[in-house]
Amino acid sequence: MEWFSLKFENDQLILIDQRILPEHVEYVPCKVYEDVVFAISDMIVRGAPAIGISGAYGYYLGFLQGADMEVCKKALIDSRPTAVNLEWAVMRMDQVYQGVKHLSREEIRKSLEKEAVSIHEEDIQMNYDMATFGVEVIPDGAQVLTHCNTGALATSTHGTALGVIRSAFKEGKVKHIYADETRPRLQGARLTAFEIVSDKLPGTLIPDSAAAVLMSKGKIDVVLVGADRITQNGDTANKIGTFNVSILAKNFGIPFYIVAPTSTIDFEMKTGADIVIEEREKEEVTMVNGTYIAPRDVDVFNPAFDVTPHGNITGIVTEKGVIYPPFKDNILKIKKEMEVK
Amino acid sequence: MEWFSLKFENDQLILIDQRILPEHVEYVPCKVYEDVVFAISDMIVRGAPAIGISGAYGYYLGFLQGADMEVCKKALIDSRPTAVNLEWAVMRMDQVYQGVKHLSREEIRKSLEKEAVSIHEEDIQMNYDMATFGVEVIPDGAQVLTHCNTGALATSTHGTALGVIRSAFKEGKVKHIYADETRPRLQGARLTAFEIVSDKLPGTLIPDSAAAVLMSKGKIDVVLVGADRITQNGDTANKIGTFNVSILAKNFGIPFYIVAPTSTIDFEMKTGADIVIEEREKEEVTMVNGTYIAPRDVDVFNPAFDVTPHGNITGIVTEKGVIYPPFKDNILKIKKEMEVK
Repeated sequence: MEWFSLKFENDQLILIDQRILPEHVEYVPCKVYEDVVFAISDMIVRGAPAIGISGAYGYYLGFLQGADMEVCKKALIDSRPTAVNLEWAVMRMDQVYQGVKHLSREEIRKSLEKEAVSIHEEDIQMNYDMATFGVEVIPDGAQVLTHCNTGALATSTHGTALGVIRSAFKEGKVKHIYADETRPRLQGARLTAFEIVSDKLPGTLIPDSAAAVLMSKGKIDVVLVGADRITQNGDTANKIGTFNVSILAKNFGIPFYIVAPTSTIDFEMKTGADIVIEEREKEEVTMVNGTYIAPRDVDVFNPAFDVTPHGNITGIVTEKGVIYPPFKDNILKIKKEMEVK
Repeated sequence: MEWFSLKFENDQLILIDQRILPEHVEYVPCKVYEDVVFAISDMIVRGAPAIGISGAYGYYLGFLQGADMEVCKKALIDSRPTAVNLEWAVMRMDQVYQGVKHLSREEIRKSLEKEAVSIHEEDIQMNYDMATFGVEVIPDGAQVLTHCNTGALATSTHGTALGVIRSAFKEGKVKHIYADETRPRLQGARLTAFEIVSDKLPGTLIPDSAAAVLMSKGKIDVVLVGADRITQNGDTANKIGTFNVSILAKNFGIPFYIVAPTSTIDFEMKTGADIVIEEREKEEVTMVNGTYIAPRDVDVFNPAFDVTPHGNITGIVTEKGVIYPPFKDNILKIKKEMEVK
């Protein structure tokens, strides 16, 4: 990898500009928290873990610039409504802040810097831990299908679902990777394909609609995707199209795994029916690279995410192990373990 | 409708250029059969019925220009490998030619002109006949999902699946139309959305991957799609993504209909496993409107069609009535009826 997804140095959060990949590899410096809010909402940075880390550094930048921390916190959390990691990371920062805000400015700064760096480093460690558990579910000689981008670009490095695939490939278990292009924002075509090509992985890009053909011909042995929010019962919000793929996989009896850190689990939310799905502007569908591909005045339905019901999910790979059905019981078990620590 | 899909006048086949819709409404004149071969292979004209009519006029143009009719016939048939109507229409022209080629040039010309015009006029009539039968399968107040473009652009006028929807809307049975954008060539976004907007139909464009969300929320009551080739047992080749949609519909218990004239049925072919699926160039996936949306050197799987197994199909609406399971028996029945006439 000759690029990085994000880095914090000289009081700046440096993000690779995911909007213009793969044709252009450019970096965007965020100097104030408003830059981070824009970077998240405009999808310069995307991928639940990468958004979480950016939110943490954004909070830190807000402190450095002397912002009203309540305003800063709210703006960061609201910059993408569905990603639970974002709220989780920003709230972690805020808890630290609430605990030290009576101290000197330099002491507060140090505490916040330390927490943001921890969130970042924990993400790196989590990716490798998820990969360790995830490799176990990959059959030998596997042909893997993935959706959206869940690689180094979506995280700090390595990736969630694509991180598992990367590690499994290194261990000789993955024969081929199929990447859904993932309309409308084409994260598969723009980003996963970029990671596949730049890492020289054996991979093929497909239109989302070609998945059933591959499955029917025995070309997919396992499906691995990421998650933006997982509820108590295992229902999982992820990039639009994930639900479709899960139904196809179920139809063909192909194992379907979610790969996501436990920070993606919303322990307060009972089922997927409670998840508010972000609807994005219609131009994401009617325009590609600045030119129209549909009538300008056509009505469009453009949900950013969908919710895969837990019944379509074989297992959830986390940094603490693989969660299997019954998800409700086993997610509760994870929650209790985490509370004990 | 203030446009037309195709028209033959002054010894020219005039085609609307479907490659540049909806932003530009322009027409391409075909003066020799090679123009028609190019128009079909480059998808200036697409949609099985429209291709069939174009093939018939292409054959007629070949005669007018004094071409070697064997070469002309082969070139036209080979211009799109999956469309059975094309071969059917060209072979109809060729049979007429074989029967009259000993006559005077003017007599041959007249016979060929008459046959091409018949194929064209029969298509118009067939569309309205399919619509008459198709309207019966649409529930009152239906929310309909369609894939690709099967409207006036795909045929001579009115359309196959979209023709049924048009007629059902006129009769007050259709509440809303959802149109899959249909990657990679975006016939839904470019063409169906164009027909929806220009005809002021109540419709919404969606990414292919958003179909499951709509279905799960009860927003789709019936799915109607076209066909490029139907085999003896009802297996149906149609635009890539149709198979995906059929699995989703099955999963949610939503009726799934094919709408196609009997000329689309390949009575010689036993099952979908025998259908040769055209794979198209990777730039259809990696480029949109001339700009790259994926790494230039990524491997791509880009099948033009997929095959929906007959078990996923509720019924096949033709100009002779609706064919229901068991398809093998009922398609054979249609064949016998056609042979008697």
